[in-house]
Amino acid sequence: MASSSSSDSSAPQTPQLRKDSVTNRWVIFSPARAKRPSDFKSKSPVNPNQQHQQQCPFCIGHEHECAPEIFRVPPDNPDWKLRVIQNLYPALSRDIPAAEEGNNSDSGRVVVNGFGFHDVVIETPVHSVQLSDLSPREIGEVLVTYTRRIKQLMSYDSIKYVQVFKNHGASAGASMSHSHSQIMALPVVPPAVATRLGSMKEYFDQTGKCSVCESNSKDLLIDVSAHFISIVPFAATFPFEMWIIPLDHSSHFHELDSEKAVELGGILKLVLRKMSLQLNNPPFNFMVQTSPLGDNASQLLYSHWFMQIVPQLSVVAGFEMGTGCYINPVFPEDAAKVLREVKVSPSE
Amino acid sequence: MASSSSSDSSAPQTPQLRKDSVTNRWVIFSPARAKRPSDFKSKSPVNPNQQHQQQCPFCIGHEHECAPEIFRVPPDNPDWKLRVIQNLYPALSRDIPAAEEGNNSDSGRVVVNGFGFHDVVIETPVHSVQLSDLSPREIGEVLVTYTRRIKQLMSYDSIKYVQVFKNHGASAGASMSHSHSQIMALPVVPPAVATRLGSMKEYFDQTGKCSVCESNSKDLLIDVSAHFISIVPFAATFPFEMWIIPLDHSSHFHELDSEKAVELGGILKLVLRKMSLQLNNPPFNFMVQTSPLGDNASQLLYSHWFMQIVPQLSVVAGFEMGTGCYINPVFPEDAAKVLREVKVSPSE
Repeated sequence: MASSSSSDSSAPQTPQLRKDSVTNRWVIFSPARAKRPSDFKSKSPVNPNQQHQQQCPFCIGHEHECAPEIFRVPPDNPDWKLRVIQNLYPALSRDIPAAEEGNNSDSGRVVVNGFGFHDVVIETPVHSVQLSDLSPREIGEVLVTYTRRIKQLMSYDSIKYVQVFKNHGASAGASMSHSHSQIMALPVVPPAVATRLGSMKEYFDQTGKCSVCESNSKDLLIDVSAHFISIVPFAATFPFEMWIIPLDHSSHFHELDSEKAVELGGILKLVLRKMSLQLNNPPFNFMVQTSPLGDNASQLLYSHWFMQIVPQLSVVAGFEMGTGCYINPVFPEDAAKVLREVKVSPSE
Repeated sequence: MASSSSSDSSAPQTPQLRKDSVTNRWVIFSPARAKRPSDFKSKSPVNPNQQHQQQCPFCIGHEHECAPEIFRVPPDNPDWKLRVIQNLYPALSRDIPAAEEGNNSDSGRVVVNGFGFHDVVIETPVHSVQLSDLSPREIGEVLVTYTRRIKQLMSYDSIKYVQVFKNHGASAGASMSHSHSQIMALPVVPPAVATRLGSMKEYFDQTGKCSVCESNSKDLLIDVSAHFISIVPFAATFPFEMWIIPLDHSSHFHELDSEKAVELGGILKLVLRKMSLQLNNPPFNFMVQTSPLGDNASQLLYSHWFMQIVPQLSVVAGFEMGTGCYINPVFPEDAAKVLREVKVSPSE
């Protein structure tokens, strides 16, 4: 990964619009609307004490209350460490035909059968344990479980993209408080992915470089390990948005091996703990941003997977809905500096 | 406007992906995740009784607590009906140069000075009055005020787009409970607008028709007046999303005349009252979706302005953030039927 040299300058004090070559999306940075970057705190932190439920179907011993299991780790073991199950309320159905696109060009209306998969990864058997409580090795096992399920889903020709994501906290969309993430396999390449791929390809065609490899600059860096960095992206859509990027160029997340998964588990744990300490345990989402499957599943020079972590600190309102343009009150250089300096006590 | 014939069929019961030729965005319709369409209610309704503030700067008599006024209606009258003022915390600054785009193509980072305008329209002098409480004529005056301010902002060469929007309720992004809307003038054409324009142009080039004119179909219709219809769009991004469309083709909202503004005020009032009655007075956003200004301000055959009204009933979570693809549990035909049948008692 190339490291573009950048001076450690402080962020400007007047508003600025930025666009990077990965998302190709304008973001307005607006210091007039901000508190000091170090004053940002969640007003509705996730309270682990409120989360205990007597009747949680994701807890060990309640497996019969869940939708069918796909696999567990270790296999055939009642004392499981994690389980992949079907979502009880799937957004897409694995039981209908993967029909061809029905394009009614006369009316401009396009309809596709809602074929696809919507799975849940139960990350721990214990209700009170959160993902960031697990050891790097255990988080690595969750990440390897994602890759294993993606490889199964890739065998369906009609699956074009697999989105791995986690919603933590009710206001970030989690309907269950037991720690879990979700995997959705889609019959189309979704719009944000198509836009990102197009933007990365355009940059590669112009410069011969990968735009994600180019994201590594000193003033945006949070932490670094042997094969990964965590950064605040140059045109972060949301305040304190973070990316974890593999230093070696790789287009598809599912190519992660189990050794690097442990290292990724460590840097993900660090980022989650820093976020929790600095921002008052906010609700958050993370998303694995990878490349399409199907005919395009080969290694791509211009596309590079990363993990995107977004604390929920602001509301998406009329301006964002209307324009697709986001207002971020915290300059990325300032957010990176704050996160770089969070002291995390050693554990494990 | 052409009316595409469509049978009054009920919505399918298996998931479906849809894309229309206006937004060109995939939406997943997923009945497995839904209550009955008629059971949708806001869990956090906007409570007008909680809204009264003794010290509201938007109330009549508190003008000196606000940022500078741009104009009021009627002019020079202490007994004003509405005021346009600067936003006290503007996301963009009118006081910095409208610099050229600084494209650092080596790093793929694009930066533009945050020049622009961010104004507030105070829709009524009275704190307890909401927009939908006003008469069609009074709402028409608010709409004409939008057009008047857009025409002022168009005189700046560097302003490429003006976004008019309203946030109603704290969880929809309103920081002030006194009824108001906002106007932001931007130095770039924002991404959602560029995507919509591109999609509408492609459809026009292929068919010779305007994609918004084609949106009129019986099963999606809510209400109709002499020059406007209200509909649920075919690929509605959000449950119970509504559009108000002028029947006569027009690319730019600011060309609305004062007579039609009163009629639009009437159909907007009806839509807001239906939404409030059916969905338990939800927080909501509305956005005026219009066409770019500057060099492209001439009448466009392929672009057609409309108002988008979105009740806040769901959370944007990891899947939507990752993919740009939305899951809507309510089929538009079902939402339109429910909204068509809401009985609104006559008033004014």
